[in-house]
Amino acid sequence: MSTTDMIRSHPNPTADLNVDLLAEAIDAAGACATTCSACADACLAEESVAELRDCIRTDLDCADICAATAAVLSRRTGSNLGTVKELLTACQMACATCADDCESHAEMHAHCKVCGEACRRCEKACAELLSAIG
Amino acid sequence: MSTTDMIRSHPNPTADLNVDLLAEAIDAAGACATTCSACADACLAEESVAELRDCIRTDLDCADICAATAAVLSRRTGSNLGTVKELLTACQMACATCADDCESHAEMHAHCKVCGEACRRCEKACAELLSAIG
Amino acid sequence: MSTTDMIRSHPNPTADLNVDLLAEAIDAAGACATTCSACADACLAEESVAELRDCIRTDLDCADICAATAAVLSRRTGSNLGTVKELLTACQMACATCADDCESHAEMHAHCKVCGEACRRCEKACAELLSAIG
Amino acid sequence: MSTTDMIRSHPNPTADLNVDLLAEAIDAAGACATTCSACADACLAEESVAELRDCIRTDLDCADICAATAAVLSRRTGSNLGTVKELLTACQMACATCADDCESHAEMHAHCKVCGEACRRCEKACAELLSAIG
Repeated sequence: MSTTDMIRSHPNPTADLNVDLLAEAIDAAGACATTCSACADACLAEESVAELRDCIRTDLDCADICAATAAVLSRRTGSNLGTVKELLTACQMACATCADDCESHAEMHAHCKVCGEACRRCEKACAELLSAIG
Repeated sequence: MSTTDMIRSHPNPTADLNVDLLAEAIDAAGACATTCSACADACLAEESVAELRDCIRTDLDCADICAATAAVLSRRTGSNLGTVKELLTACQMACATCADDCESHAEMHAHCKVCGEACRRCEKACAELLSAIG
Repeated sequence: MSTTDMIRSHPNPTADLNVDLLAEAIDAAGACATTCSACADACLAEESVAELRDCIRTDLDCADICAATAAVLSRRTGSNLGTVKELLTACQMACATCADDCESHAEMHAHCKVCGEACRRCEKACAELLSAIG
Repeated sequence: MSTTDMIRSHPNPTADLNVDLLAEAIDAAGACATTCSACADACLAEESVAELRDCIRTDLDCADICAATAAVLSRRTGSNLGTVKELLTACQMACATCADDCESHAEMHAHCKVCGEACRRCEKACAELLSAIG
């Protein structure tokens, strides 16, 4: 898998981070960023857009934070572990908030169902990576 | 696949765009953004960093443009086809430039090999979507 | 001004680009990105959100493209002029499209008035830099 | 000033946030994002690039996190205060880390001096906004 390949081909050792957990967090954050952007736009096109305002806002916040998280996690040069931990915490909360919102109308809107799943996957990946970092 | 699911669950029809080509362009651009960020960082950690400056710069440019492209392509509300076409053209060129650079030292650095492949995939996806849009 | 300071403190000469035009394009694109994000969110909170869908979408597209443009323009290492030109073209069009949309309801929504101005400034800066590059 | 104008023209009241502190945080984060991108690139072009690796990495992390922070702070629809607080905490740490790094060679590289100042400004703006949110 190419994310794992990229991590293993980096000149620096990954002694301080589990490769599989790191790869899953990068992949989950990248997928969640795109899915949240798409969900915000799909909500915007719904007839009931006025009731979906909060969902659109949390989608967009989650997309921005996940995109930053995927980029930061993809860097292994030097060490920036303090920042990584705070960003993972923020990303975990953004994903949990967005998942709560999307799940609450997942039965009405299939895009919110898919997006809720992408958020839960990323929330879990951030939590597991945080827990492994200690 | 979730990108296709997201497109199909959007309230607006996709009459003007082929779903599979659109999904592939979104996925390829998202993957290329993360891979280019990771390649820039891996090049930075190489002993020969001074010779990899151009590769790092084209990697970072390509990452920024691919991330914007994935986000813009994920929107289907209203129509913004003029902008989409110009952005696809820019993304296609950024990917071609970065692929040329990465491929030139793919034998020495496995991360450049993986990154060159991600760039070619995205270059092709942009070209095919552009050609389908007409 | 700090953008000009940053350009002048770069180790590479800027023989191929006018410093003032480059600094203005970086500043205009950065300001436009934040303003478009804010305008999208303000439109979302309006009672007439259903009529502002197209404006929100072009705002978000413009924000993504302007952010990428500001980042790419801030790089002066090596040369990536082919990509820079295509991206400036895309940014100019995104700004023009968003300005047209925002100006059409600038009298009703002050945020659209401010955003239209930010978009016109960036559109002009991209056009002038493109014309200077040749 | 346009950031304040944008906040004041938003349909929702800003009862829970001080407008000046919010505007300063948005402006500081936006400026820091662009400055950090430019500093990373200027470091990359320095003869001593091999010694500037950590600075480039913290610059790029800081740029990504500041850009996300500026975008998230520019949204006032609904309430996403839990995520905002975690993101401000991450941004404050990213800026402090990058400022420490840049200041350590500010005498040698003018771009690191300017970047250190942009990071300190954003670090302070995040801290003050966090403290006002409580």
